[in-house]
Amino acid sequence: MNNTIGNLITLTVFGESHGPAIGGVLDGLPPGLPVDEAYIASQMDLRRAVGKISTGRHEADVPEFLSGVRNGRTEGTPLAFIIRNTNVKRSDYDMLEDTARPSHADYTGHVKYCGYQDASGGGHFSGRLTAVLVAAGAILRQALEQKGILIGTHIRSLHGIEDDLFEQNELISQIRALNTKNFAVLNEEAGRQMRNEIEHAASLHDSLGGILETAVAGLPAGIGEPMFDSLESRLSHALFSIPAVKGVEFGSGFALAGMYGSEANDPLGIENGQVITLSNHNGGINGGISNGMPVIFRTVIKPTPSIARPQKTVNFKTMEETEITITGRHDPAIIHRARVVQDAVCALTLADLLAQRFGLLWLKEDRI
Amino acid sequence: MNNTIGNLITLTVFGESHGPAIGGVLDGLPPGLPVDEAYIASQMDLRRAVGKISTGRHEADVPEFLSGVRNGRTEGTPLAFIIRNTNVKRSDYDMLEDTARPSHADYTGHVKYCGYQDASGGGHFSGRLTAVLVAAGAILRQALEQKGILIGTHIRSLHGIEDDLFEQNELISQIRALNTKNFAVLNEEAGRQMRNEIEHAASLHDSLGGILETAVAGLPAGIGEPMFDSLESRLSHALFSIPAVKGVEFGSGFALAGMYGSEANDPLGIENGQVITLSNHNGGINGGISNGMPVIFRTVIKPTPSIARPQKTVNFKTMEETEITITGRHDPAIIHRARVVQDAVCALTLADLLAQRFGLLWLKEDRI
Amino acid sequence: MNNTIGNLITLTVFGESHGPAIGGVLDGLPPGLPVDEAYIASQMDLRRAVGKISTGRHEADVPEFLSGVRNGRTEGTPLAFIIRNTNVKRSDYDMLEDTARPSHADYTGHVKYCGYQDASGGGHFSGRLTAVLVAAGAILRQALEQKGILIGTHIRSLHGIEDDLFEQNELISQIRALNTKNFAVLNEEAGRQMRNEIEHAASLHDSLGGILETAVAGLPAGIGEPMFDSLESRLSHALFSIPAVKGVEFGSGFALAGMYGSEANDPLGIENGQVITLSNHNGGINGGISNGMPVIFRTVIKPTPSIARPQKTVNFKTMEETEITITGRHDPAIIHRARVVQDAVCALTLADLLAQRFGLLWLKEDRI
Amino acid sequence: MNNTIGNLITLTVFGESHGPAIGGVLDGLPPGLPVDEAYIASQMDLRRAVGKISTGRHEADVPEFLSGVRNGRTEGTPLAFIIRNTNVKRSDYDMLEDTARPSHADYTGHVKYCGYQDASGGGHFSGRLTAVLVAAGAILRQALEQKGILIGTHIRSLHGIEDDLFEQNELISQIRALNTKNFAVLNEEAGRQMRNEIEHAASLHDSLGGILETAVAGLPAGIGEPMFDSLESRLSHALFSIPAVKGVEFGSGFALAGMYGSEANDPLGIENGQVITLSNHNGGINGGISNGMPVIFRTVIKPTPSIARPQKTVNFKTMEETEITITGRHDPAIIHRARVVQDAVCALTLADLLAQRFGLLWLKEDRI
Repeated sequence: MNNTIGNLITLTVFGESHGPAIGGVLDGLPPGLPVDEAYIASQMDLRRAVGKISTGRHEADVPEFLSGVRNGRTEGTPLAFIIRNTNVKRSDYDMLEDTARPSHADYTGHVKYCGYQDASGGGHFSGRLTAVLVAAGAILRQALEQKGILIGTHIRSLHGIEDDLFEQNELISQIRALNTKNFAVLNEEAGRQMRNEIEHAASLHDSLGGILETAVAGLPAGIGEPMFDSLESRLSHALFSIPAVKGVEFGSGFALAGMYGSEANDPLGIENGQVITLSNHNGGINGGISNGMPVIFRTVIKPTPSIARPQKTVNFKTMEETEITITGRHDPAIIHRARVVQDAVCALTLADLLAQRFGLLWLKEDRI
Repeated sequence: MNNTIGNLITLTVFGESHGPAIGGVLDGLPPGLPVDEAYIASQMDLRRAVGKISTGRHEADVPEFLSGVRNGRTEGTPLAFIIRNTNVKRSDYDMLEDTARPSHADYTGHVKYCGYQDASGGGHFSGRLTAVLVAAGAILRQALEQKGILIGTHIRSLHGIEDDLFEQNELISQIRALNTKNFAVLNEEAGRQMRNEIEHAASLHDSLGGILETAVAGLPAGIGEPMFDSLESRLSHALFSIPAVKGVEFGSGFALAGMYGSEANDPLGIENGQVITLSNHNGGINGGISNGMPVIFRTVIKPTPSIARPQKTVNFKTMEETEITITGRHDPAIIHRARVVQDAVCALTLADLLAQRFGLLWLKEDRI
Repeated sequence: MNNTIGNLITLTVFGESHGPAIGGVLDGLPPGLPVDEAYIASQMDLRRAVGKISTGRHEADVPEFLSGVRNGRTEGTPLAFIIRNTNVKRSDYDMLEDTARPSHADYTGHVKYCGYQDASGGGHFSGRLTAVLVAAGAILRQALEQKGILIGTHIRSLHGIEDDLFEQNELISQIRALNTKNFAVLNEEAGRQMRNEIEHAASLHDSLGGILETAVAGLPAGIGEPMFDSLESRLSHALFSIPAVKGVEFGSGFALAGMYGSEANDPLGIENGQVITLSNHNGGINGGISNGMPVIFRTVIKPTPSIARPQKTVNFKTMEETEITITGRHDPAIIHRARVVQDAVCALTLADLLAQRFGLLWLKEDRI
Repeated sequence: MNNTIGNLITLTVFGESHGPAIGGVLDGLPPGLPVDEAYIASQMDLRRAVGKISTGRHEADVPEFLSGVRNGRTEGTPLAFIIRNTNVKRSDYDMLEDTARPSHADYTGHVKYCGYQDASGGGHFSGRLTAVLVAAGAILRQALEQKGILIGTHIRSLHGIEDDLFEQNELISQIRALNTKNFAVLNEEAGRQMRNEIEHAASLHDSLGGILETAVAGLPAGIGEPMFDSLESRLSHALFSIPAVKGVEFGSGFALAGMYGSEANDPLGIENGQVITLSNHNGGINGGISNGMPVIFRTVIKPTPSIARPQKTVNFKTMEETEITITGRHDPAIIHRARVVQDAVCALTLADLLAQRFGLLWLKEDRI
């Protein structure tokens, strides 16, 4: 199921960067969820390119709903939407017919699709398709919020600059604050330094990546499945669908390799009649199943591979070595845009798992 | 599909630590693959507990095949096998009926299964179920080897001790060497230090984790799918099914957060008429699809949560805080046993994706 | 996976009768298949309403391709298309907000979607969505034809009038002839009588159904799976997706209830070096798997439920009994339009099963 | 997913007729369902061969539970069970290595599995595997009964002999009566004639099939999905998994081909505050979704293909025409044994669809 994700609530994605439109089909939705165009637009805005640290390609990115919505509510039938590609400059990409941009999918796409794919702008592999994830995820994200499940992501680090950490006691207000920011950091001074660093990279015709950290507050214990559908398995499956993600870790993640068990274990206690853990090295997940504590995970976003510097590459039609200098409109960093994509795929995954446990109708607003 | 993984070639897993048996059903196999009991036994041996650095529980772990095999070959019908649980000491686990071991699945399993599960020995969440993964994976691993696709895993680091790195020019001989070792390191001196460190942790009634690194040699370009079934998505989904894994990264992984694009990009070249990359920061995967270079990934294995020290916890039936000291037979580290599990889930995932592209019959030995 | 069908090659369908558009996403296609707009249009024409025996609603029904096609070939990426709804008369359906048309999905749709669905014109349950099946199926049908696998359907019977039977020796020419006819019968005189019968029903403000019979020639032996994915299971699953189908039978079907085993069994023989059966009571399928003989199945299409006569019904909002007389534009029979839908879902199902056995790339034209 | 069926609640089946064991894995079950060995045994008894009209092969058929059950309740973890094959006479089947029994899966299995399968006794295609369906289905059937959803099947006709019809006003008592009978008919005199007819066929070394009719009482309206997961699609998919089924029809089924719409439509009314239909030609399903009326369907069971008469066939290894006379132990009819299989797959399908709508936990007994 290549371009479809989910079990009960599924998203199917289609489109190419320079084709007529991109879009998605959300199926298995409960009827009666709000489809709030202002909320969706706010999420699309967070993903959109802005200012000096982003691409010059601007798209209105307003989803046109084709089915499944009536009077601002889901019908329960498949909800399909498209986003037209309007600001297309194919000429920027003429060389991609036969020359691979390093660390892009040009060569692998050529092999996989036997040369039949429209590679212009990255084709189906373009980061532009994440607009579909954001639009679809927004509907579920809002539904989860109405059930008290909040998702927030910040730029944890970028080229050595570290943001503040999530604080468990402040988590909900931290998440709410992040969700209003274009450049999502907890510490504004760290954010200023990060933006400077990105601008500096841009001035070098270079690019940067970084680490995104997500917290989910309010997820009930008992969500996820043993073995193959662990919460970590399902979330990582979705997160690695975001084009630039090359790593995912939960809780203390790779730092666990340096700890003793006595340091890494999370002792349990009771607070307000609820079981809690006194630390959260496991990121709110034990045995693949949520334990009621905040779910914490991080992804690494690789530096944008499009850089305006000469790079060694090959012409895969003539099979000759050559050089490429990527021109056109590109982002020196996409991490600040990727974070709302991360929120979106997280919302899609959690809504699906919650529906599996509690039934589709549980997500309906009026059953809060 | 909680306990089933795969699309064309699927594995369904069942069993509890202290029930009558654990087992699996491999379905969708091509007919005619070897089911080589000696090979499977060698893989099971690599997983088995040995020496001072492992648990005292020993199981023969010889799979009994119930269907799908005739004359040492797969029939093509579902291949089912069971492994009897023979060395069970339920009394070691009496307290688990109501008291959670920190960082185990005792509490989350209780919530998920509403108190109906047999929690003894960790029940369905026990690491014992990884024996099923190894037995099933061995069949596909051997089939892949016959097609020239080799998988090898080493302990990249443990409590600060680092193993040597994979060397691209030596990769195949490094993999072959690793696959004969009980304690899989490239540098024997590093391995000796790691074992000492584990024994030291054991003497402190404590435990350790570490980082496993896997290399796949010989995978053709073009494997994996765009968006939701990227090679990273599929592999991470499978890897996070291994109970102790809390992070997965590909290529340079989290280190990409500190690089410029000009450092992180892998330039392309041509070698022996094949497209290659001159570095491999992307771990052999671009746009979710294999590029023909070695696929490289790392997982972090958290320290074994069972430690013979007093820990704060709760009785989740009386909802009172209490303390637990875990007795019984436990591993001070499982990383050296986990690596063959990692090889196994990698083999299962790759075989499934290869069948999707080339057809089921491609995997048959006599079509090499 | 409510609105998605298939395993490797999947179709996701969306849209409502009176919404902006209906459409589909075909995913998992091999790259390089022809997307022949003239061929697709010819299939859409066969489905379109024509003459006195069909509805007055006419739609151009030209699919707009949004992705996955370049230069008349599939790219291998998801192929999405939409068909705009242009000829919508919502006022014909105002009463459906609260009154159920007997034997339509108005009441069940209301319950399922908790009153949120757009029921106008039948909404998502409208027969109009079969246009999506035909457009998608046409691509696979043409691909199968290029591999020598031909599908043809005729109206086997209608209100007591019987068409001629398929003749095994003439099968390919019979199929080719059917595929050029608007009203698909083998015997033109029977067809003339059937059309008269439909016109007579229309004059009574009534409607008719009938039996469709499909033959597949050229399907290799070995296609289908044991148990749950038998060829019969997969085909019937797809066929019952056609709104009016209430029965599916293979080979001699329900007539087998009156036969002895010695009559019903198909003896085997050898012809031109191939295993054949000397009769075909099993419809080309044994044990759920094709045997190389023509696959034969029949569906029953129920009479169109929209009739311009007063019928007892209920207002499901006020929960009162009432009466309804359906006005608007309706078909006195849809069987002649349904047959190309039947061909289409058959093509989708067979292409998916063939890809599962032989690999995706097998379907490519230039590998015939 | 060849040998797995279901979405949330899945059954995976394995085994061959003459292998060590057959068995199944039921996954996705809610915790806390009764696993009532006496109830399961009663269902297995209904399937077992008895008396002059059945095979001489007798198996105890007591499932051995390996996981997922504790204290007579489901744990929520995968429930695996095996049934050992004890009464195996391989010598009866020696000829099957190369000679096909007409209308069995011997030849198609040989092609599909490239000659690697163990064909003895029909191998994986044997009707013996239906014992797994019955054992698994029994658990869900009992759970449904506790929610007021009753399933019953009778032999509607056999070689021209007709049983009485279901009566809507008597339906629940009719179903309860059927479920206690070894030979399930509503009219005992018709049953006596049917048994005579079977004995007569046996005396001719021949066999018979027939038509099974199932009624489901108590299914709430709103179950099933539009398009591809219609209730008819899901049920027929499961029903065609029963080896001898060659046709499935709902409500008036194929008889609808002879009706006018005004005859076939089911007018609606209100009874006890519920929407009902005044006739039930649609078998309780409109638009693929249950309408709250009894769900009615019929299957045709083909005559048992094993007959002790000479039949023309081929040796598929030498590719020569030959003759076969099947010896060994066989049923002159299996329809009376098949009906509890039909009940079982119906229960599995409905439980899965109910869980999809209302959540897994809905099925738990104590939430009736």
